[in-house]
Amino acid sequence: MIEKANLADKLERFSDYFAPRTVCQFNDHDVMVAKLRGPFIWHKHDDTDDFFLVLQGTLDIELRDRTVRLGVGEMFVVPKGVEHRPVARDEVHLLLIEPTGTPNTGDVRTAAPRQMI
Amino acid sequence: MIEKANLADKLERFSDYFAPRTVCQFNDHDVMVAKLRGPFIWHKHDDTDDFFLVLQGTLDIELRDRTVRLGVGEMFVVPKGVEHRPVARDEVHLLLIEPTGTPNTGDVRTAAPRQMI
Repeated sequence: MIEKANLADKLERFSDYFAPRTVCQFNDHDVMVAKLRGPFIWHKHDDTDDFFLVLQGTLDIELRDRTVRLGVGEMFVVPKGVEHRPVARDEVHLLLIEPTGTPNTGDVRTAAPRQMI
Repeated sequence: MIEKANLADKLERFSDYFAPRTVCQFNDHDVMVAKLRGPFIWHKHDDTDDFFLVLQGTLDIELRDRTVRLGVGEMFVVPKGVEHRPVARDEVHLLLIEPTGTPNTGDVRTAAPRQMI
């Protein structure tokens, strides 16, 4: 049976950064929550757009030509193939959506494992 | 240039119910905000799951065998082919994601037009 997901409850259940947890699946995508703190790495996804919705904190999504600053309740889609670097200056909680199996770093060799929660 | 979307700002820009507005696109899906009040109709989508995240209010998603009650920050995915009826007992604000072109009623003859905002 499919259950609802309370995003705040899911976020309380882990504390590590840059390690998204899958809360449910949708059309062959993973819907995930994640905690970020500090800079991630520059990367891109050649085969998928990258969906970010900020639930807590302020996130800078650095692009090569500008920075998109997201507060709570703000979302941004990084188009496929576009290099970006998320930078969380304080602790940021996010809702992320990516096709199931997408490496979060853009590279399977360095990606965090996908974990259900 | 792709811009961020502030969901609360988008929601302030319209007041009609059951008429989703597209705020951005993601992997051939429309990411939408909507206002609901009262019962919608029973329907299903044979070709897509249906993504709901409540931003304000309390939404009952009635299924044929149970009701899933969603508060703020809670999400639910109705699997493809499953009949459901959203019922908003007060004014509800939602984030919805469906493939671009999906009729919100499950039937193009009765669907609300897709509108960007």
